[in-house]
Amino acid sequence: MANDRIIATYHPSSEPARIADRAQGLAIEQSVECPLDAISDPWVRNAVLGRVARIDQIADGRYAVRIALAAATAPAEPGQLLNMLFGNASIQPDVALVDVELPPSYLDAFGGPKLGLGGVRALTGVQGRALTASALKPQGLSPEALALIARRLAEGGVDLIKDDHGIADQAYSPFAARIAAVGRAVRAANESSGRRTLYAPHVTGSLDTMRRQLDLIRGEGIAALMMMPMIVGLSNFHALVREAEGLVVLAHPAMSGATTIAPPLLLGKLFRLFGADATVFPHHGGRFAYTPDTCRALAAAAREPWGGLKPCLPVPAGGIAIDRVPELLSFYGADVMLLIGGSLLAARERLTEQAAQFVAEVAAHGQ
Amino acid sequence: MANDRIIATYHPSSEPARIADRAQGLAIEQSVECPLDAISDPWVRNAVLGRVARIDQIADGRYAVRIALAAATAPAEPGQLLNMLFGNASIQPDVALVDVELPPSYLDAFGGPKLGLGGVRALTGVQGRALTASALKPQGLSPEALALIARRLAEGGVDLIKDDHGIADQAYSPFAARIAAVGRAVRAANESSGRRTLYAPHVTGSLDTMRRQLDLIRGEGIAALMMMPMIVGLSNFHALVREAEGLVVLAHPAMSGATTIAPPLLLGKLFRLFGADATVFPHHGGRFAYTPDTCRALAAAAREPWGGLKPCLPVPAGGIAIDRVPELLSFYGADVMLLIGGSLLAARERLTEQAAQFVAEVAAHGQ
Repeated sequence: MANDRIIATYHPSSEPARIADRAQGLAIEQSVECPLDAISDPWVRNAVLGRVARIDQIADGRYAVRIALAAATAPAEPGQLLNMLFGNASIQPDVALVDVELPPSYLDAFGGPKLGLGGVRALTGVQGRALTASALKPQGLSPEALALIARRLAEGGVDLIKDDHGIADQAYSPFAARIAAVGRAVRAANESSGRRTLYAPHVTGSLDTMRRQLDLIRGEGIAALMMMPMIVGLSNFHALVREAEGLVVLAHPAMSGATTIAPPLLLGKLFRLFGADATVFPHHGGRFAYTPDTCRALAAAAREPWGGLKPCLPVPAGGIAIDRVPELLSFYGADVMLLIGGSLLAARERLTEQAAQFVAEVAAHGQ
Repeated sequence: MANDRIIATYHPSSEPARIADRAQGLAIEQSVECPLDAISDPWVRNAVLGRVARIDQIADGRYAVRIALAAATAPAEPGQLLNMLFGNASIQPDVALVDVELPPSYLDAFGGPKLGLGGVRALTGVQGRALTASALKPQGLSPEALALIARRLAEGGVDLIKDDHGIADQAYSPFAARIAAVGRAVRAANESSGRRTLYAPHVTGSLDTMRRQLDLIRGEGIAALMMMPMIVGLSNFHALVREAEGLVVLAHPAMSGATTIAPPLLLGKLFRLFGADATVFPHHGGRFAYTPDTCRALAAAAREPWGGLKPCLPVPAGGIAIDRVPELLSFYGADVMLLIGGSLLAARERLTEQAAQFVAEVAAHGQ
């Protein structure tokens, strides 16, 4: 990769007269990060310094700037790649990182999803329709109370049940006890229904802690897990992806700072590159301000052909209720997993029926 | 900590008529994350649900909202604390996290800087004046070329020399070879000058990788290191802080998303809490848009008394030149380390003299 270039696209705000300087400033900030006068080595100037490849005006005072960054500065190490793409520029208030094109060697090195969209379908046995998901919450419940909710959701036929991302290793619900109880409940429901609902415990903490949690997950025969790549660190996320071979890896968008890194890039493209089999994101019209265009682009980034990488399953979420199922399926098509959490759980003791209703709506769509 | 509360302060934008709902929405989002109807357990409603403690208007359409979060949801684990403070809300475009007040048990559990401001002064032998720092750059140079720059900076008397945060483990400058060469150069300069300039190699990657790098640092007898907490993950940052006992730990602000988490909180308070001995941040008037008030508050958060935690050394940086030394020292006082990188390096072969000039300006201030 000695002379390969990574093409990063930024959207800075600028007056027209200053955009050339602003673009050059970004190229310097994300490569050599020093005045050009400080560079005496001609190789650094020619091969390492970022190059402004193109500037397009996209709105009044807003530009798309493509910068060619030297691949040699960002070897295939997830954190360092993010650092060279946006480390310092993330602190500047006038610029968003919106896309990246990587040399093929990165796809080989990172590898993307191990199972991907097809693997999730194979493990759950769901073909020909969209998948369904829900979340265990609220925060504060005991392992037994969460297991009861999980049993009802599984009996209702939801395909994947994840921990709420706020659920970690709290005193009122220790990780080991919780995943054992929930795992048993889901297994029991699967045995009586013949379905294959997955449970994705939330794995977090240092890499050491996450490894211990992965061991517990394997010990319980659980086939999925969820991580927050932006909180555990992209490098640790990727390290755990490699060690979790055979398990479905779900990415959660917490701390994704979506206003400065474009969500299609971060949650769609980069989380897929580093190995998310499925990526959770807020669908528009919920509690988060993603536009329909953002959601469409995110799903495309997760699923569209990209080198030899498997597609990653888009998981729209964030305040969706059952009445929006037809709208979402028309929007995303069937290669999607719909995640409905709180609005299902509000059914309380009628949760099984409500979950079954959710699954039936999804199965009936377009038939 | 069963019934302790963490007080988080958010600045949402809102119409006056909707601020009560918006505040309640934040309290739910960062605690139970589900409709109140879905909560049947009274303990969860009383002890786990976030409570809006206070709402103050701070500007037209902008509010300060204090929310009491249950400490039980965020045990003393750095990533989980960040998650409960801002995980999901970080995706909402209308809100910033600006402050947090923690129960004393957190200060004991995290421990803050091991050496802190006083430890950096003791190791460098610098008392009674501000400290000076510079950075090795540009990206792309060989270990030998970086070592030459380091030698000149050390001969000029700069107190701390750090790797540029873009410098990691690249083929043109492998970590092991680089820190050996730079470490030797700084040691040689120290031996002939009698000074104690520190070298802080940049440590990054997964926790495994960072551990290997820490071993190499210890093997070379180097007494400092730098990490990017927001890229390596706060939990891994804190894990390495504990293992790096005796070494100065410098925090770098890359990917700190400072527009949605207030810099005084993230770079001043939280990085200190998790153990940064010194924290780098962009001083106003450089390439980043921090205001003087932000910089003042950040330095205060790093240095002011906070339980039994040691003060953390503020390290203003980001495009400062020597001509601003008097202004910065008047602004921060002497308990500060000034970091001048690129504008020193532009002196090229006159770097030693330029570094000496920097150090002399700092030493002369106020005398």
